[in-house]
Amino acid sequence: MKTQVAIIGGGPSGLLLAQLLHTQGIDSIVLERKTKEYVLGRIRAGVLEQGLVGLLEQAGCADRLHAEGFTHDGTLIAYGDQMFRVDFTAHVDKPVVVYGQTEVTRDLYAAREAAGGQIIYNVDDVVIHDAKTDAPYVSFAVEGESLRIDCDFVAGCDGFHGVSRKTIPEDARQEYEKIYPFGWLGILSETPPVNHELIYANHPRGFALCSMRNAQLSRYYIQCSLDDHPDNWSDDAFWEELKRRIPPEQAEALVTGPSIEKSIAPLRSFVTEPMRWGRLFLCGDAAHIVPPTGAKGLNTAASDVHYLFEGLKIFYKNGTKDGIDVYSEKALARVWKAERFSWWFTSMMHRFPDQTAFDLKMQIADLEFLRGSTSAQKAMAENYVGLPY
Amino acid sequence: MKTQVAIIGGGPSGLLLAQLLHTQGIDSIVLERKTKEYVLGRIRAGVLEQGLVGLLEQAGCADRLHAEGFTHDGTLIAYGDQMFRVDFTAHVDKPVVVYGQTEVTRDLYAAREAAGGQIIYNVDDVVIHDAKTDAPYVSFAVEGESLRIDCDFVAGCDGFHGVSRKTIPEDARQEYEKIYPFGWLGILSETPPVNHELIYANHPRGFALCSMRNAQLSRYYIQCSLDDHPDNWSDDAFWEELKRRIPPEQAEALVTGPSIEKSIAPLRSFVTEPMRWGRLFLCGDAAHIVPPTGAKGLNTAASDVHYLFEGLKIFYKNGTKDGIDVYSEKALARVWKAERFSWWFTSMMHRFPDQTAFDLKMQIADLEFLRGSTSAQKAMAENYVGLPY
Repeated sequence: MKTQVAIIGGGPSGLLLAQLLHTQGIDSIVLERKTKEYVLGRIRAGVLEQGLVGLLEQAGCADRLHAEGFTHDGTLIAYGDQMFRVDFTAHVDKPVVVYGQTEVTRDLYAAREAAGGQIIYNVDDVVIHDAKTDAPYVSFAVEGESLRIDCDFVAGCDGFHGVSRKTIPEDARQEYEKIYPFGWLGILSETPPVNHELIYANHPRGFALCSMRNAQLSRYYIQCSLDDHPDNWSDDAFWEELKRRIPPEQAEALVTGPSIEKSIAPLRSFVTEPMRWGRLFLCGDAAHIVPPTGAKGLNTAASDVHYLFEGLKIFYKNGTKDGIDVYSEKALARVWKAERFSWWFTSMMHRFPDQTAFDLKMQIADLEFLRGSTSAQKAMAENYVGLPY
Repeated sequence: MKTQVAIIGGGPSGLLLAQLLHTQGIDSIVLERKTKEYVLGRIRAGVLEQGLVGLLEQAGCADRLHAEGFTHDGTLIAYGDQMFRVDFTAHVDKPVVVYGQTEVTRDLYAAREAAGGQIIYNVDDVVIHDAKTDAPYVSFAVEGESLRIDCDFVAGCDGFHGVSRKTIPEDARQEYEKIYPFGWLGILSETPPVNHELIYANHPRGFALCSMRNAQLSRYYIQCSLDDHPDNWSDDAFWEELKRRIPPEQAEALVTGPSIEKSIAPLRSFVTEPMRWGRLFLCGDAAHIVPPTGAKGLNTAASDVHYLFEGLKIFYKNGTKDGIDVYSEKALARVWKAERFSWWFTSMMHRFPDQTAFDLKMQIADLEFLRGSTSAQKAMAENYVGLPY
C-alpha cells in the first residue's frame, strides 16, 4: 500500500488529522490496533477548548457538537466553606464546550467513512521503518497477513503505550515524568448532573469533581489511594463519600443512581522531547500525558494535530519543510503550558500524603487568592478555555 | 511605670506602632533589648509597599523617604536566555519605593525622640504577665534593676526569637513552618547598582538578585548552600559567581568593588496562629517570617501594625473591643497571602536539591507563563506592590 501520511492510531487525534488532511486533498491511512467498537467504548473526558471546536469545524465534524454540546461559561471551585465561580466568558470572552470524547470520536469515524477514508483495524506488530530517510514505511500484520504502507510521513497518534514514541531511540529523546501519589475513582451514572457547570472540590478527605457528559449522564470522581480498587466501592459508598466532599447544598441536591461504569485512573504528568524524529511526528498521548484536572488531555492532542496539519499543508502546497521543521518546537511550547496548568490545578486541589501543615495552608492561600483576585481568575480562565495555538 | 500600650521590641514595627499611637494621643513605652546603634546596624531589605509608605506618612515620618527613596515602577525577571519586565504601574497603577529598612528605622527613632516618646534600651529578662486579664504588666531588668510597666495592652514586636510569641502557651498556638534547603549569600558594596530596578534571576547555578539601597550602595545576593560560610567567598569569587548567574549584558555592566558587609541568611516560611492572646498582640516577625524573595517581611509587619493600630484607636475612642477582637483574623488573612506570594516566588526562582527534571520544567513553564500572560503579570504586580489592607 501507499499513502502520503500513515497515521498510527485510530483515536480522536489520528482521525482528526486524517480528516483535516482530507480537506486539503492529502491522503492518509489510519492503522488501529483494536476495533472501532473498542475505541468507542473507551470513556474519556469531554471538555473541549474553542481551538478543538474550531478544528472539528474545519474538519466538517462539528454539526452534532453544536447541536448537542453544552456551552460552559464558567466553572465552580469549592474549598472549606467557600464556593466560587470562575467566569470564563467574563474574563476571556470564550466558553468551553462539554461534549464527550466518545462522541467526538464517533463523529470523526462517521466523517472518515463518508469520505471513503481508509482505516485498518485489528492491526498488530506495527513497526515504523526508515523514519530518518525521505522514504519511511510502516509494516504491520492483520489476521496473520504481513502488510506494508509506503508513505511520506508517519504520524504517531497511538497513545502512551504505542510504538511510535518507542521508535525514537532512547538516546535521541528525553522524558520528563511526575507520578502523583493518588488516583481518581470515577463513576458514570444515568442521572442528571448535580450542577449545570463542573464543580472542582478541595476537601480534607480528598479531591472531588462533579462533571457530566449530557443532561442525563453524570460523571463524578473522588480522589483515592493508588492501591484502592473499584470493587472496594459499592455505589452507595461512592455516593456517600462524594457527598461528604462537596458543599452541603450540592450534596443535598445530588441525584444518585446505579453506576454504569466505575474505574480508577492514576494521575501522571509526562512529556517526551522532541516530538519529531525525521519523518515521524508524535501527537497527543504518544508524546505527553497530563493529569485530568482541567481536562487538557484531548485538547493538547488537538493542538499537536493543528501544528502538524499546518506543517503538512505547507509541505504539500509548496514543497517546503518550514512548517514541519518547527512542529516539535511549536507543539512543545504549548504542551508545557498545558502541563504547567494541569500540574498547578492538580497540586492545588488534591491532598498529598506528604503534605505538611504549611503546605496545606499554601493550598488554601492559593485558593483564597484565586477567589479574591480578578487577574488570578483571568489567568486561570485563559488556560482553562485554552491558550491560543 | 504605667502606660497604655507596652511595646516589646524597638525595631521598625514597634517604633511605627508607637508613633501611630502617638498621633492619636495614645501613650506607649518601647522596650528594646539592644541599643539604638545595634538596631540601626542591622541590614535589612528596603522595598516598601504603598501601604507602608502610607503608614509612615500617617506617622509623620515620610519626608526623607519621599526625598531620598527611589520609585520602582517595575522589576526584571531573568531565566534562560530571557529577561522580561513586570510593569507595576501599568498593571496596578502603583509603584514600590526603595528605601532601606535602616533608614525607615532611623526616621522613626528621630520622630519618637522629637515627640518625647519613651524607649528603654538594654532591657533584659522581659516577662509578659497576666495577658489574659484586663490588667497585664511587663517586668524586665535594666542594668540589674528590676522594673515593671503596668499597661492596657502589650504589643509583641520583638521578632522571631523574642519572648512575646513564647508567652502564648504552646497548646494555645499552632505553628506552621517551611525551611528552604538553601540560603542567600549577600553583599553590600559602595558601587552604583547594575540596574535602576531589581533583577531576579533563575539560573541553573542558583538564584541571584541585584538590589540596591541607593544610587551608590548596591545589595547583591546569590543562592548558596546552607552549610556554606561567608569566609568561603572572597569578593572576587562572589562577583564572578554573580556574573555567571545574571544576563550577559548585565554582567558586563556590573560595577564591582570591595564588599562592606557579607553574610548568609537562611530562608524560612513561618506563621503562628492566633496572633492575639488576651491583651497580647503579636506583630511582624514575632508572628511570621517570609523568605526574602519579593521583600514582604517589613511590609507584612507593617500591615499587622495597621490592623492593631486601627483596633486600638477604636478601643481608646469608643471603649469597644470590636477592632482588637478582629485583629488576629484580619492580620492573618493578609499574612497568609504574603506567605503564599513569597513561597511561590521563592519556589519559582531557586534551584532545589531534590528537584526532578520535570520540576525544573514546571519552573521554566511558570516563568514562561508569567512572561507571556498579562493577567499573570497583573496577579504578580498586585502582590508585589502590596495587597490592600
